[in-house]
Amino acid sequence: MKAFLEETFLLESDTAIHLYQEYATKLPIIDYHCHLSPKEITEDRAFENITQAWLAGDHYKWRAMRALGIDEHYITGQASDREKFGAWAKTVPFTMRNPLYHWTHMELKRPFGIRRILDEQSATGIYSETESLLQQPDFTTRGILKKMRVELVCTTDDPLDDLQHHQKQAGQEDVRVLPTFRPDKAYAVDDLEAWNAYLDALSEVSNIEISSFYRLMDALESRITYFHEIGCRLADHGLTHLHFKLCSNIEINNLFIKMRQGKKPTPTEKEVFRYAVLIKLSRMYHARGWTQQFHLGALRNTNQLKLEQNGPDTGYDSIGDFPQARKMARFFNRLQATDQLAKTIIYNLNPADNEVFATMAGNFQEAGVKGKIQWGSAWWFLDQKDGMEKQLNTLSNMGLLATFIGMLTDSRSFLSYPRHEYFRRILCNLLGNDVEKGLLPKDEKWLGKLVSDICYHNAKSYFAFEETTIKKSKQPTT
Amino acid sequence: MKAFLEETFLLESDTAIHLYQEYATKLPIIDYHCHLSPKEITEDRAFENITQAWLAGDHYKWRAMRALGIDEHYITGQASDREKFGAWAKTVPFTMRNPLYHWTHMELKRPFGIRRILDEQSATGIYSETESLLQQPDFTTRGILKKMRVELVCTTDDPLDDLQHHQKQAGQEDVRVLPTFRPDKAYAVDDLEAWNAYLDALSEVSNIEISSFYRLMDALESRITYFHEIGCRLADHGLTHLHFKLCSNIEINNLFIKMRQGKKPTPTEKEVFRYAVLIKLSRMYHARGWTQQFHLGALRNTNQLKLEQNGPDTGYDSIGDFPQARKMARFFNRLQATDQLAKTIIYNLNPADNEVFATMAGNFQEAGVKGKIQWGSAWWFLDQKDGMEKQLNTLSNMGLLATFIGMLTDSRSFLSYPRHEYFRRILCNLLGNDVEKGLLPKDEKWLGKLVSDICYHNAKSYFAFEETTIKKSKQPTT
Amino acid sequence: MKAFLEETFLLESDTAIHLYQEYATKLPIIDYHCHLSPKEITEDRAFENITQAWLAGDHYKWRAMRALGIDEHYITGQASDREKFGAWAKTVPFTMRNPLYHWTHMELKRPFGIRRILDEQSATGIYSETESLLQQPDFTTRGILKKMRVELVCTTDDPLDDLQHHQKQAGQEDVRVLPTFRPDKAYAVDDLEAWNAYLDALSEVSNIEISSFYRLMDALESRITYFHEIGCRLADHGLTHLHFKLCSNIEINNLFIKMRQGKKPTPTEKEVFRYAVLIKLSRMYHARGWTQQFHLGALRNTNQLKLEQNGPDTGYDSIGDFPQARKMARFFNRLQATDQLAKTIIYNLNPADNEVFATMAGNFQEAGVKGKIQWGSAWWFLDQKDGMEKQLNTLSNMGLLATFIGMLTDSRSFLSYPRHEYFRRILCNLLGNDVEKGLLPKDEKWLGKLVSDICYHNAKSYFAFEETTIKKSKQPTT
Repeated sequence: MKAFLEETFLLESDTAIHLYQEYATKLPIIDYHCHLSPKEITEDRAFENITQAWLAGDHYKWRAMRALGIDEHYITGQASDREKFGAWAKTVPFTMRNPLYHWTHMELKRPFGIRRILDEQSATGIYSETESLLQQPDFTTRGILKKMRVELVCTTDDPLDDLQHHQKQAGQEDVRVLPTFRPDKAYAVDDLEAWNAYLDALSEVSNIEISSFYRLMDALESRITYFHEIGCRLADHGLTHLHFKLCSNIEINNLFIKMRQGKKPTPTEKEVFRYAVLIKLSRMYHARGWTQQFHLGALRNTNQLKLEQNGPDTGYDSIGDFPQARKMARFFNRLQATDQLAKTIIYNLNPADNEVFATMAGNFQEAGVKGKIQWGSAWWFLDQKDGMEKQLNTLSNMGLLATFIGMLTDSRSFLSYPRHEYFRRILCNLLGNDVEKGLLPKDEKWLGKLVSDICYHNAKSYFAFEETTIKKSKQPTT
Repeated sequence: MKAFLEETFLLESDTAIHLYQEYATKLPIIDYHCHLSPKEITEDRAFENITQAWLAGDHYKWRAMRALGIDEHYITGQASDREKFGAWAKTVPFTMRNPLYHWTHMELKRPFGIRRILDEQSATGIYSETESLLQQPDFTTRGILKKMRVELVCTTDDPLDDLQHHQKQAGQEDVRVLPTFRPDKAYAVDDLEAWNAYLDALSEVSNIEISSFYRLMDALESRITYFHEIGCRLADHGLTHLHFKLCSNIEINNLFIKMRQGKKPTPTEKEVFRYAVLIKLSRMYHARGWTQQFHLGALRNTNQLKLEQNGPDTGYDSIGDFPQARKMARFFNRLQATDQLAKTIIYNLNPADNEVFATMAGNFQEAGVKGKIQWGSAWWFLDQKDGMEKQLNTLSNMGLLATFIGMLTDSRSFLSYPRHEYFRRILCNLLGNDVEKGLLPKDEKWLGKLVSDICYHNAKSYFAFEETTIKKSKQPTT
Repeated sequence: MKAFLEETFLLESDTAIHLYQEYATKLPIIDYHCHLSPKEITEDRAFENITQAWLAGDHYKWRAMRALGIDEHYITGQASDREKFGAWAKTVPFTMRNPLYHWTHMELKRPFGIRRILDEQSATGIYSETESLLQQPDFTTRGILKKMRVELVCTTDDPLDDLQHHQKQAGQEDVRVLPTFRPDKAYAVDDLEAWNAYLDALSEVSNIEISSFYRLMDALESRITYFHEIGCRLADHGLTHLHFKLCSNIEINNLFIKMRQGKKPTPTEKEVFRYAVLIKLSRMYHARGWTQQFHLGALRNTNQLKLEQNGPDTGYDSIGDFPQARKMARFFNRLQATDQLAKTIIYNLNPADNEVFATMAGNFQEAGVKGKIQWGSAWWFLDQKDGMEKQLNTLSNMGLLATFIGMLTDSRSFLSYPRHEYFRRILCNLLGNDVEKGLLPKDEKWLGKLVSDICYHNAKSYFAFEETTIKKSKQPTT
């Protein structure tokens, strides 16, 4: 019997322990997709207490508290930070078998060195202990990133963003911070008023009058160019599914004009429009050697009342069951036909789509690129032991695990970096079990290289960020 | 190596054995969803033989026999009870690895105390032995329920039912029997003739002339009120998927009139109608503090010839692949918008929907209620070791297992209660394995409470049946 | 710890080892579905080298090489056989955890007796060693089949085929080779030009002028009759999903005429047409006592550029997510209604459909036939350890594993027969684990019979090929 969270946590064989200790744990972290605040990194923010570092913005924890029936006052409401922490501490024992239970205790262990179980009894003590630690200079945002050996962070940024915080980062070599271009709002035509306002803002930032569909694309391209100058090499998109709906130049522009005038598009017209924007963006990414990411399959904002009360991304999203395969194939095929398919990472939220995504990647690989089309790491609700094991196993069975670019945090919290440790332990454990059972040869050098590649080197060479020159460039005149 | 079905069956660790023996096995059973006959309970029926208790109505066994190629004569036909038992006994060895194999031998062990394998050789002996036992006074329906420590049974009842057998039960404290309101026939407009006949009968029972859509809802509400008086606190619905299709008051009434006149609705109109009935029923349930259940995803009556020969629910249904997420979210959101969403249990038949259902529950929880929206226990084809483990694991990963209200039999047979034992063993085993592997702290008191909650206490406080006053009320005049 | 690929490979318990060694391994192979070339069997082809035997036509290996970024020159291009083998050898270590890694080394072990790991270092040696062996008379196509104890092979053949090679086989008793009727091109109306050309050829071969839909069906029936005379007892079809779309005789014929004139059908018309052809073919199969196979769910030819460069079936297909259940039920129900449903095997490519397919089979079984409707073995991307275990487990839980007709290779390579060994080991291991855990009684005779049935006897009696008289018949005059 093993003790909870002991040194060999998740490692069930000697081979697994060896691979983890000799290879996985020694490597730094490339966190190529997250939602950290670049401002908080630049300003090297110090958190007053663990509630601010841990509970603000973490809708995973909020959902767990709500499932237990805890009042919103203690979740996103007016309760004090201490009270909110108490509500979370009370919830923790009920999260057993949920990834939150492991994450919570791994994150208390690193960086805080706390090994107690968090519950109502231990809450006050742990709150105070973390409060003191967070005042120490090595517990600021950059301090934590360095402690966790994070080499590079890719944040997620709106095209409107002036990226001033990324610019201020330039030249800081301890932790590099690069932006990711996430243009979702440019095709969010479900809320036409918000979309029109967004286009007005985009027009101002880009200094391009967005009078036609093509001028919209020009404006977006000018932002892509700007992002590129600041070192951006990644784009990201959140969609129910990849769209495919052709239309003529005249039709798309008429549709654009109609929507600019505030006239609601039909569901088909929305799909036409989103497809038209996305396919052109994809070509722009390809032209610049970027990698495009697609996060597909979420059913967002299901609870209208809570959306109005708490805003989007506050824990009322779930897993959708949208058809994915046919249109995704057509989308990529369209780009492939003119040799304009960029490096691509596809992430699915519904695990029933695992095999569709895993095999789709294999249809559009390219000579000379190792794993050009990647099926991304287990995402959001799937970011837990079962979910990661399923992703790793399905990727193994239907593609080449050895080319996988591995883990990312996708988190809003600076305390989430043990998720990389979690992933690395799970990976080493799967390989160790296979060796133990005679499913793989016991060739540790070979396996060690594989582990190192998946944990670090594959991502490093895939994105080739090191070739990125970060210039302190000016914001285009507005 | 373990012997088949020995005391530690399904329990692979000391922790699991301990949790099962010290916590799980000691608790009575709340069977909050089944298809037992209230009449047979009231009349305390004694079965002539095991065929009557076991094979009549059990379409799981029928399907297995048909898959082996056994003639319908020995399944639902004119063969003698002894012959039918022989046909089943012959089939049993072929059901290895199917839940029927475990259920069969667990049910022979409890309550009959028979530990032999059932097959062609042992059939005659087992038939005789069970025949003798079934004559004993403690092997009647109530006798069996008491032996299995069943505290409460919720049957499944049509709105037309006069609930006389439930009324006769009132005051009997050894086993409580409460009705469940299952109004599927009120919106079963695929067969318009049957639906119109059903509405005529409903009109008579409720003494309300069903001349409009609103009068239909009045009639249903009068039945809900009547059910409530008899102690009903649960509703249940069987649907391919939850509907969402708005329409105006006038439109729905025109559609109703049209169908009352025997004019076939279009597929869209059927969805409109079912949605309109369901959303109004849901509000009625909420007003009374009931819990609503939705069993979603079955593809029923696939074999028209057999439907005509044997009727519905005779083993020709299978798992469907209907889209579930979007409309379910909208249905619940609609109720939530006016704070009229009742406690809800959603059951999916297609395991590919597990994660959709598990995460959907998290969107509509309510402060002050522990696990208000429940993702129900593995159902029908999924009611087996793999299916239950997947449900428990997915629930753990995407929600709070600790708030789960646990198992039910969903059975037509009084011999099915070992399914609760099966579930409890599986639950304890999962927890035991986690402790063994260092995935959970070895805190037996905490784990023991969790086990007790899931096996019994969560359901008890969730439904709050004990607050139900059962009055001997009169049937409304008809 | 076990060594890689040792004698007890995949067998984790004594029971498993015993079942495998005493029962599974002793049985010959009935390979009832594959894509071997009948010509190469008849001519008893000797391969010049392993590239020809192993890499020509194997799009599984091609995809793996492409995922690694290897140039097409070394995959399907002009590189020498030795260079191509080198490219594959370099890829092999990257395929770890993919079935290709196990297959590769199992196939080197049997029939070549090579136990080294294939990689860049060992490539030259292994190439030479296999080259010598392939010159030996027992390494011809028939030699390999005999070595692998293949008793019967069903190839996959177009209705146009004259089956001359099957005819030449007749009377050869060491390995029997029977055709399978695969009429996909007769309803491939996506490419109308190709379809019209195909119908012209069919007209010539059948000597029937295909002037109407009914004459098309006459022509197909004449080919079915011809195939039947040569010993064919199986049909096979590849479709996204089973269709169901009724239409009148006049409508279908008008649609046929329209398409014969080169006028494109709408998507609905395509479905109408495919359904009309399939339902009539199914009745013809039933009339002759054939078994019909449906391979459902592939998304084919996703990469248009590569389709034009390399042709179909070259590794650009993936897993689709088409709705399957409702129309499949209606299709079978339609045949059942007139008692014209043939023995049927349904194969799904998307594992999310496993339970839909497993339970669908149970709706249409027939008295007197053991397992008339079969859910087929894990197919294509699912043909790996995880995929097979899931199929076996789901089949066990939702049907009768004991009636399963087991494994097939589905391969284009004569070296793929260790896949049967792989399947048999996995099967024995699952049973062994169950016995070990007390989930099944330790009754080795019973389990041994079960293993023998699934590995060999069930298929033998299901297809009843032995009752097939193979006559040297003449090709119908053309």
